[in-house]
Amino acid sequence: MDSALGSNELRIDRERLWATLEASARIGPGRAGGLRRLALDDADREMRDLFVAWCREAGLTVTVDRVGNIAARRPGREPELPPVVIGSHLDTQVAGGRYDGILGVLSGLEVIRTLNERGIETRRPIELIDWSNEEGARFTPPMLASGAFAGLHPVDWVLGRRDDDGKVFGEELARIGYAGEAPVGGRPLDAYFELHIEQGPILEAEGVPLGIVTGGYATRGFNIDIRGENAHSGPTPMAKRRNALVGAGYLIVAVNEIGWQFAEGEGKATAARLEVWPNKAGILSDWAQLTCDFRHPDPAATAEMERLLKAAIPEAARKARVEIEIVEDWTFGDERFDAACIGLVRESAAELGVPARDILSQAGHDAYHLSRICPTALLFTPCRDGVTHNEAEHIELDDTAPGVDVLLHAVLKRANR
Amino acid sequence: MDSALGSNELRIDRERLWATLEASARIGPGRAGGLRRLALDDADREMRDLFVAWCREAGLTVTVDRVGNIAARRPGREPELPPVVIGSHLDTQVAGGRYDGILGVLSGLEVIRTLNERGIETRRPIELIDWSNEEGARFTPPMLASGAFAGLHPVDWVLGRRDDDGKVFGEELARIGYAGEAPVGGRPLDAYFELHIEQGPILEAEGVPLGIVTGGYATRGFNIDIRGENAHSGPTPMAKRRNALVGAGYLIVAVNEIGWQFAEGEGKATAARLEVWPNKAGILSDWAQLTCDFRHPDPAATAEMERLLKAAIPEAARKARVEIEIVEDWTFGDERFDAACIGLVRESAAELGVPARDILSQAGHDAYHLSRICPTALLFTPCRDGVTHNEAEHIELDDTAPGVDVLLHAVLKRANR
Repeated sequence: MDSALGSNELRIDRERLWATLEASARIGPGRAGGLRRLALDDADREMRDLFVAWCREAGLTVTVDRVGNIAARRPGREPELPPVVIGSHLDTQVAGGRYDGILGVLSGLEVIRTLNERGIETRRPIELIDWSNEEGARFTPPMLASGAFAGLHPVDWVLGRRDDDGKVFGEELARIGYAGEAPVGGRPLDAYFELHIEQGPILEAEGVPLGIVTGGYATRGFNIDIRGENAHSGPTPMAKRRNALVGAGYLIVAVNEIGWQFAEGEGKATAARLEVWPNKAGILSDWAQLTCDFRHPDPAATAEMERLLKAAIPEAARKARVEIEIVEDWTFGDERFDAACIGLVRESAAELGVPARDILSQAGHDAYHLSRICPTALLFTPCRDGVTHNEAEHIELDDTAPGVDVLLHAVLKRANR
Repeated sequence: MDSALGSNELRIDRERLWATLEASARIGPGRAGGLRRLALDDADREMRDLFVAWCREAGLTVTVDRVGNIAARRPGREPELPPVVIGSHLDTQVAGGRYDGILGVLSGLEVIRTLNERGIETRRPIELIDWSNEEGARFTPPMLASGAFAGLHPVDWVLGRRDDDGKVFGEELARIGYAGEAPVGGRPLDAYFELHIEQGPILEAEGVPLGIVTGGYATRGFNIDIRGENAHSGPTPMAKRRNALVGAGYLIVAVNEIGWQFAEGEGKATAARLEVWPNKAGILSDWAQLTCDFRHPDPAATAEMERLLKAAIPEAARKARVEIEIVEDWTFGDERFDAACIGLVRESAAELGVPARDILSQAGHDAYHLSRICPTALLFTPCRDGVTHNEAEHIELDDTAPGVDVLLHAVLKRANR
């Protein structure tokens, strides 16, 4: 049946894809129609179990690595060749949507089901991977297990990460039965393809069903410690107060206003997370930590946002009489994807008559980490109003299926290369 | 031995008082030399057990009421008369000191031990009370169980309060063995005396060992809800963001700056506590709640601070594109204490040659609630630098003992009235 290769007639079964997404949407329901399926919680276990069952039904060989990444392999005619990988994640935010990450994994499954149904073999193996803890909503940082796969994080460090309740990644993985034995990464991949909802408003607004990601917004993130001093919230005179929460307040305002200075150029600044201790009514808090980040399509602008943050820190510290210090920082998003893989996506879109445009990613993705170890392409499909990390996240099948067809053809081309 | 009544020779045993305070300071040690003895935790149980043992050794009859207040009674010659009560609390802040509240209870014990040792009987009974959960560090609001005693809170409402981990007051009380059967309040008290560290710098700075509290700072507190919308912290354009944490940031700054406007008149504004949800790195938070309060010796100034807060709310809401609403508010501190009880304190101080000055309380105290149901006096003794609600809280015995002697004499006069 290799005659179907590259045929414009080959399409996914869009109704089957939709039914698969709907089945996923019943596992870990949120309060408002979305999902709350945090990495390594009971819902994640249930979803993983169903995913593994689907993969086995599709004849795939499932292995789980030490950080819980699930790889499901379809053999090639030359089974020893490095595989073409399709991947994304099945975990969600605390109040997340039904498609972020999930669409990528289940589109990969649909690609494989389509190949199976049509009896299409490929030269190289195709592997489908669900990466653990992409969201970072339970264990930080985000993209944790793909980072380990790409050699950025030591495995033992990943296994020792703790959630806000002090629960340990490795123990939670064992609890849900996904502490695998396979090594984490360290093996050659031929290429990596990831399809993801855009998480932005551009494709929907322009009526274009496919975004071909050529790179990311340059992103700089910071954890900033604010140290004050405990004192009674009543008698302590204003001039003697060293309230860490007040320092955090000035800093949050500064971060937000930096974002506005760059808003016209599509820059963004986020005060995302604040921990405060002891954070009680009768006492001035002596410690806080703010997590914030800055994103801009132009790395020079991101650097300027960082400079402004660093200039704002002494001012906030002075006003609140606290000490403020950046204790951790990170960078991502200025990775560039692989020209050959991107070329296959463009070619497939053209053959299938799917309108496409180049686009930058504004969010983090597992594909960033993978791009460090193999040729990688990232595809975006539209989502309504760009709303994501929200239970109201929504996609239309008609806007989504064309992108999945392109994924199918691009992967097929690459696997037969 | 009634000849000792009113005698200038009668003094407490200051070394015994200090040893008792030291014994307390070993129960629930903090990280930095202070105490972490939260209401109804294991350390609170251990302290209560020791306190009850001390009371029984002193011949007192111990009863525990339904909200865990421990009352230890020394009979009078006319045992049916309403008692003269000495009280305060043995619980602490999360990172609290060794003396806040504790000094009041253990001074009361020392007063009784002194009377016992000298064989002094009184006409009226004397009762020593440890009030549950004064700090509010574990269960809100502060002064919870004295509030129930004074009829301000229904007993069942108190028993149903939950801490940040969802643990229930009544269940925790049963767990530590202090869910008593005595009714809460509803009985006449002749008078209430409380001795407390100042929690401010005035007495130490002036070298005056005794503050006679004539009233409190007028205090207005608020819980303020901030409602935004979940969205991805990356792609969402600045103009579409509705980040509750950013709304909270503007509000914290506004609260703090209101405090500075009134700082010269000894006004204070505190952004004390912030809860944020979901408070994760990858998502804009859709909910936050800020707890803040305003204090000023002049109730009209406190009212003006409240007006400025209410004017700042729409501005903060506009800047962060969120909704902000006051959902709870409270008032305390403009209670006035009893002229007759204050008179006894002044008289005793004069007789003993203890320098004293009138002072306003800036913090909440169980005495405020008691002042609603019986004649009440509140006495302050110095603390170093006014530092409190901090593990570094410190007192000197030489600066403290004179105030406890005054307490002894004032209580004795009142109990023989």
